[in-house]
Amino acid sequence: MIEQVEIVLDRRARGYYLITNELRKALPRLPKTGMVNFFIRHTSAGLTINENADPSVRVDFESYFNHMVPEGMSFVTHDIEGPDDMPAHIKSSIVGCSVTIPIKEHRMMLGTWQGIYLCEFRDHPHTRRVIATIYS
Amino acid sequence: MIEQVEIVLDRRARGYYLITNELRKALPRLPKTGMVNFFIRHTSAGLTINENADPSVRVDFESYFNHMVPEGMSFVTHDIEGPDDMPAHIKSSIVGCSVTIPIKEHRMMLGTWQGIYLCEFRDHPHTRRVIATIYS
Amino acid sequence: MIEQVEIVLDRRARGYYLITNELRKALPRLPKTGMVNFFIRHTSAGLTINENADPSVRVDFESYFNHMVPEGMSFVTHDIEGPDDMPAHIKSSIVGCSVTIPIKEHRMMLGTWQGIYLCEFRDHPHTRRVIATIYS
Repeated sequence: MIEQVEIVLDRRARGYYLITNELRKALPRLPKTGMVNFFIRHTSAGLTINENADPSVRVDFESYFNHMVPEGMSFVTHDIEGPDDMPAHIKSSIVGCSVTIPIKEHRMMLGTWQGIYLCEFRDHPHTRRVIATIYS
Repeated sequence: MIEQVEIVLDRRARGYYLITNELRKALPRLPKTGMVNFFIRHTSAGLTINENADPSVRVDFESYFNHMVPEGMSFVTHDIEGPDDMPAHIKSSIVGCSVTIPIKEHRMMLGTWQGIYLCEFRDHPHTRRVIATIYS
Repeated sequence: MIEQVEIVLDRRARGYYLITNELRKALPRLPKTGMVNFFIRHTSAGLTINENADPSVRVDFESYFNHMVPEGMSFVTHDIEGPDDMPAHIKSSIVGCSVTIPIKEHRMMLGTWQGIYLCEFRDHPHTRRVIATIYS
């Protein structure tokens, strides 16, 4: 059995955000056993799973990914939408645009310290759409 | 219900290629609601989802990933097949070997700007096999 | 149909380990056609698919990822659990915490050279739990 919902996330400026609860609230009652896939329909934002307790992890993510994929790299040719454009595309392929999570006893089986991050790679807030597909 | 097809991609030299249409043509009629997973059976190529409109994005991907994982790194010991061998393995774990995409109304629910990229990390063209698994 | 098993991996010190056989042994008989998803319930370890034959690839992975995400980066603020803490979180989002593999004729359809790696990013051995979900 397949269920699918589209979730429109709150608009957020560049950064890493814990959205586990925002996604959970948008889901129907989960099946006893199954899987859920969250897929973000954009190429300058991403989804990943990481530490859910200490906000400093998200701050360090922002610092690290900017260090790894800085703006103004000399070889970049795609800069139509500004200096944050191409780095955003690169980062989105590094973290990925979807996460798949097992369901057991009607709950997502995230580990104790796991949460779902929205990775917003563009400076200005954008409306981001996520499709959740639940199969059981 | 599960359907599965194996797709043999055209051989391509090192680079990033938009293969959404090539994959779509190889699929059977998609179910009303479901998911499709594409899995590439290789460790020196990858699949990712990124910008589908401007070819300069794929050019910049090639430049960036070569910058991030250059050939000739002093600590590399695995170079049996040449200097592009180990960087190809590293890149394939960074971008990943599969993508999972929701299906709605018989269509892949890619965002407006999303396309599927073949990432060919070896210099010389290789035959690459992808398994598409559709579940509904 | 969905089947799910939890797998407790052997504790291992920092490094990259081929665990395909360890996972395979823990699975029930696989369906004729389907998919299996392995999900690691941790934020300082990861799962990826890469070369299964030459141990030097795993050695080079360790060297490369330490080069890409070194300890002691000046901007890191999250260091409660030591200098390997934040680099471990970053690496886990780069390689990812789950892999999805097609099943055909009751077998995982890994390519000839593909194996499943446990990526242990913390210095000291930790107990790591993986959930395998099989759907057919």
